[in-house]
This record gives sequence, structure tokens and C-alpha cells, in this order.
Amino acid sequence: MNLETVNYQHDGGVAIIKLNRPQAGNALSAQLASDLLAAASNAARDDNVRAVVFSAEGDFFCFGGDLKEFKAFGGQPEKLKPIADQLHEAMSIFLTMPKPVIVAVNGMAAGAGVPISLVGDIIIVDETARFRLAYTAAGLSPDGGSTWLLPRLIGFRRTQELIFENRELSAPEAVEWGLATRTAAQGTALDTAIKQAKAMAEGPTMAYASAKKMLETTFANNFVAQTDIETQEISANMAGHDGKEGIDAFVNKRKPNFKGVR
Amino acid sequence: MNLETVNYQHDGGVAIIKLNRPQAGNALSAQLASDLLAAASNAARDDNVRAVVFSAEGDFFCFGGDLKEFKAFGGQPEKLKPIADQLHEAMSIFLTMPKPVIVAVNGMAAGAGVPISLVGDIIIVDETARFRLAYTAAGLSPDGGSTWLLPRLIGFRRTQELIFENRELSAPEAVEWGLATRTAAQGTALDTAIKQAKAMAEGPTMAYASAKKMLETTFANNFVAQTDIETQEISANMAGHDGKEGIDAFVNKRKPNFKGVR
Amino acid sequence: MNLETVNYQHDGGVAIIKLNRPQAGNALSAQLASDLLAAASNAARDDNVRAVVFSAEGDFFCFGGDLKEFKAFGGQPEKLKPIADQLHEAMSIFLTMPKPVIVAVNGMAAGAGVPISLVGDIIIVDETARFRLAYTAAGLSPDGGSTWLLPRLIGFRRTQELIFENRELSAPEAVEWGLATRTAAQGTALDTAIKQAKAMAEGPTMAYASAKKMLETTFANNFVAQTDIETQEISANMAGHDGKEGIDAFVNKRKPNFKGVR
Repeated sequence: MNLETVNYQHDGGVAIIKLNRPQAGNALSAQLASDLLAAASNAARDDNVRAVVFSAEGDFFCFGGDLKEFKAFGGQPEKLKPIADQLHEAMSIFLTMPKPVIVAVNGMAAGAGVPISLVGDIIIVDETARFRLAYTAAGLSPDGGSTWLLPRLIGFRRTQELIFENRELSAPEAVEWGLATRTAAQGTALDTAIKQAKAMAEGPTMAYASAKKMLETTFANNFVAQTDIETQEISANMAGHDGKEGIDAFVNKRKPNFKGVR
Repeated sequence: MNLETVNYQHDGGVAIIKLNRPQAGNALSAQLASDLLAAASNAARDDNVRAVVFSAEGDFFCFGGDLKEFKAFGGQPEKLKPIADQLHEAMSIFLTMPKPVIVAVNGMAAGAGVPISLVGDIIIVDETARFRLAYTAAGLSPDGGSTWLLPRLIGFRRTQELIFENRELSAPEAVEWGLATRTAAQGTALDTAIKQAKAMAEGPTMAYASAKKMLETTFANNFVAQTDIETQEISANMAGHDGKEGIDAFVNKRKPNFKGVR
Repeated sequence: MNLETVNYQHDGGVAIIKLNRPQAGNALSAQLASDLLAAASNAARDDNVRAVVFSAEGDFFCFGGDLKEFKAFGGQPEKLKPIADQLHEAMSIFLTMPKPVIVAVNGMAAGAGVPISLVGDIIIVDETARFRLAYTAAGLSPDGGSTWLLPRLIGFRRTQELIFENRELSAPEAVEWGLATRTAAQGTALDTAIKQAKAMAEGPTMAYASAKKMLETTFANNFVAQTDIETQEISANMAGHDGKEGIDAFVNKRKPNFKGVR
């Protein structure tokens, strides 16, 4: 793919998607939202992609909306809406695509950069990275799925602290609070994420896909409804290649050879 | 306002509401529930109120339902219902009013005093305060929104520990668990809350209002529905005074001058 | 009750249910799922049972599905479905029966053993026990209510870490994360659970029942709907024996004598 503000590479079974406006702190312009949607769609659609790494070029992850560009809109909502819509659609694709998404947060995430940094199944954070929502400091309310993601990750009270007070979190705090999965030594988040994505691309990606789908809907279901879905999914996985292979390998104490199919 | 068991002051843009039955540990009588509802309604309705502080007079925050009064009811539910209804309506107003609510927990919160102490956007706790649900110790099930608030703040397991075992939490534990936002040195919670409320009253209160509204409904929405609401809200804020002002101030590296309008 | 793979004892007001395939790590066979459902149903139905302890015989709690048996199914979903359905029904009974359930996790819980170990109101874990989901290691997606229970206990990020990476948790980590209530010294989880269950069996079990019912549905309700249910439940409890007794005992500073009725 050839995009202006997003890098897209395909390395083995892994797509590596990187925000690429480093001179602007990878701030979200109209172009970047459009490019990110194209990249996410492509990774979701391409059957040769079995896992995705999402990161950014330069020293920062993402500074959030490009407020210089937004200022030029003169407050016209019809200029903001297509950007927000494309960003949210891209994020929805990351959250729901039937393959693992690993985010490497290479540096500071601010504003919409915070929720964007959280749209993966595994979040690896450079030990020097920081998180700060900052919307209300600019007179704005949160977007980027902040109000969907944060309460499900860290509860209401800490979400309120981030939104109303714009408290800045360090990388270790983000892990301790349950925003991110783990830290990586300075400068190593991307390599760590790629290594893990390659391992997961060789894994039972349909089983991962079942888990993603079920987590996305869990809060809308009671126990009976959710376990009915679990039974359908584990049955389908057990009947397919990777489930049979996994069970046989377990019983015979050998290493499984998954294909990502069921 | 002139109320029997609740103090209501208006200081600049801030309403200060204090439970005022200190001789009874601010226990919830029929009168107090009625007064609290009147105070909450007034703060919500008064356009000159841009932020609210909620606290209590004396050494305790609230000991919960006034069991002496309840005993006189002789177990007649029709006597309890109007008290519970008024209390819950007052709490719902705190949770949904389009302005920030800061709670100063000045001392012990027990029974319904616990959920009442949690109905704000920021919860500041005297370092000597303690929390204890205590309902089941009196043969009762929790009310005051305990079963709505606690699972959203601290998860199921710790909610069960508080409800079934009546474990008492210290102020630092309440912060560590995510019930409260932070502690304040002994005797300073109210002043700290007033100072912060005055600062927030000068802030982008419509953006805060958007955030409150979106958090209240998040668990009922999937990602697409919630982000659609986020786009509507940020668009409305960006088109209004405070959003334009905030973006202009950010771009020009100056201090914003918010008016609480959009 | 006389069951092949589950022990059922009745001791005072307490039913003690133990998985009993220790030679197979208490792995979930068709027989065990059927026996567990029978035991759970009986405990729920028997009015002389006022609290339940759920544990396992031997050194392990439960190794999850019996993959040797599942391998013999040759991947036929119609063989797995009745086992999963019975297991989920048994778990649903533990989660919803109107009496407290205390789980004593006596040792390693793996696969479906993890969610099964979490279906109580109080979870006491042997300090040497460990938890590991392990589904995706065998090419399978989680069942046993894993995707319902875990996000409600520990949030999305840590749920993903357990499902996608099969991270093993120690007993203290399980408590720190909010999966379990507390640890017990090696070899003492069962005795601790029985002692606590006997105390709770003498408690206001209808108030506990109200709390269980309300927690089960909280995420589907907004604040107004949930507090309406709280008012109904506390009114019913206050009008009944245990509520009257509890209030009278509180006011008169004496020990209450609950009967588990309202």
C-alpha cells in the first residue's frame, strides 16, 4: 500500500501499520484518518495477514487531533465529522478484525492518541512513553472511543481522573492501572511487538478471533447468553484444523502446528 | 436555600451542599432525603452554579440510613419507599447534572453513606476517613446505588467482599481500589474540594457535561454507538465558544478563557 | 447424593461440593459435568442448605476439559455441546442460587478450571494455587463463562493477557488482580471456606440473595432502573424477619439472630 501519512508493510504473516507524520507528532489530520482507515481495512481483508502490529514513526506515538487543522475549520462540525467517522471506523476494525492486533506505543500519546494506542489485544509500551487525554484542557469532550475503552479497562473513577483532570500517566502506571499489557525497554517496543506478532501469526488465529468477538459483546449479554456463544465458538474451533491439532498435540505432548483455519 | 438537615451555600460559581445532622452522624432520615433532593435539584437547575461540592458537617460523612427511624416504621415498606426514592433521585441528579460534582468525604461513611460518598466526578477523601457498607450486618440488602456504582468502580469480586463481608476500607485503600480519586490531609478535604471546584467552575463545563453524559451510558452501548455519540458531542463543543477558545489558545500557546457555554 | 465424580456432603446448613476425579486432575469429563449439575441443582433446591462450599479432592482444583475424552470425539461438536451446556448450567446455578457460595481453590486451576473456580461470592485460594487459561495453547477459544466473568472482574486488558498469552497467575496475583478474595495458608482453603460458610449460613441469607441477584444484572441496567430494584429488595428485606431483627439488634446494640427468611 502506498499512503501519504501511514506506513504499511507486510512481513511474513504480519502487517505493520505505522502512523507517519513524525514532524507533526503524528497528529490526526484528515489525511491521516483516511490513510489509517485504508490500512486497517487492508489488514483486515488480506487473508495473508494473520496478525497486525500498530505503531508510529519517530519519537512520539500520536499527539491527538491536529488542532491547527481543526482551527482552520472555524468550528464547523461538518469538517470534523468525516475525520472522526473515519478514525472511529479504523479503530472499530482494529478492535473487531479476526486476528490479533499488537500495539507498540513508542512514545507520548495525547488526546485521541490515548484511545488509539489502546485498540489492540496486547499493548506494549516503551518505558519512557506517557499518556495524557488533554481534551478538556482544549475545551473539548473526548472522542476516539475514550468513553467506551477507558471504563472497560480501568473503571469509572480513574477514567474521570483522566478526563476531568488530564492526569498524565507514565508507562509503568499505565500497566499497573490495566491500560497497557506491559512495558518494554526504551526503543524496543516495536521490535518486541513484531516478534510477538510473528509468533501469534503462527498460532491458532481463529481461536484468537473467537475470543476477540466474544469480549467485544460481553457487557451486553447475561451469563447464559454469553456461555451459549462460547459453546458455539469452542465447538467450531474443536471441529476445525487448529482445535483438532491442538488437542492431539496436548494429548501426545508435542508442539502443535497451527494453520489459522478451522 | 433554607433546609433543615442540609446546608446549601453558593460561593462564586460553586454550590456547596453539606449533610447537616452531625449529632446523628448525618444519618439518612426522611427529612434529610427530602432536603438533599431539594439541594441537588437547585444546584442542577441554577445556571449560576457551574460546579458542585458535596460534603458533610461534623466529624463523619454519613452513617447511612437512620435505623432508629426505620425501626419506628415497624417494617412497613411504604414508609421506606419515599425515602429511598428521594435519595436515589438526588443521587441520580448528582450523577447526571451537566456540571462537575466534587465530593469531600470528611469522615466515616457507612451503609448508604458509602454509595452517597461516590456520586461525584472527583472524590477527595480525608486521610482518616473509612468506608463500610454494613447492610448485611443489619439483615438488609444494599441500596443507594451500591450495586450499580461499586461493580463499575472496583469490579465484582471486591464488591462482593464489601457487601457480603462488610470489610472496612481505609482512605488509602479506597483510592488504591479506585473508589475514590485521592486522599487529603486530615481536615482538608472540604477546602481542597472547594478550591478545585472553583477552578473547574472557570473551566469548559459543557465539555465536562458531555463527558459525564457519555460515561453514564457507556456500558449499554457498543463501540460504534458510543463513538457516534462522541462525534456529536465533540462537534457541538468544537462549534461553541469554549471549544473555539480552547483550540485557539492551544495553537497560540496562551491560557484559555472558558465561559461554560457552547 | 451419590455421584460418581463429585462428592456432596451436607454439614449443618452447609452443602460441601467437591470435584472428585483427583487421579485425572479433576478434569471435566461428560460424567463430571453431569454430576456437577446434579450437585449444584440439589444445593440450590434444598431449603436446609443455606450456604455452599465448592472445592475439589486431591492436590489440584481442576485441569479443565478432559482433552483425552474430547480427542476421542474426533472433533464432533455434538459430543461437546451437552458437556458444555451442563457445565454452564451448573455454573449459572452457582452464580444465581439465592444463597452464598464460597469456593475453596485447593490447587492448580487450568482451562475451564479457571472460570469454574470463580463462580462464588467469596473465593479463597490456597497460597500455592495457580491459574492458567491455556485454551488458545490447545487451539481452542475460552468457555466456562471465561469471557463473561473475567472482564467483570479484572477488566479487558488483563483478560486479554490471560486469554491470548496464557499468562499463569499465582494465588497472590489472583487476589491483587481481583479474581479471588483472599489467600489461605497451604492446605487450609477448604477448612477456612467451611468455617466461613457455616457463619454465613447463620446469617441473613435472603439479604445475601438480594445482593447476588442485583449484581448479576447490574451491567444491563442504568442507575434509575438498578436503584428501583434496590428499593424493592431492601423494602422486602426490611419487612421480613431478618431485616426487622437486624435493625432491632443494631438499635439495641445486641447480636442479631438471623433465620434466613424474610
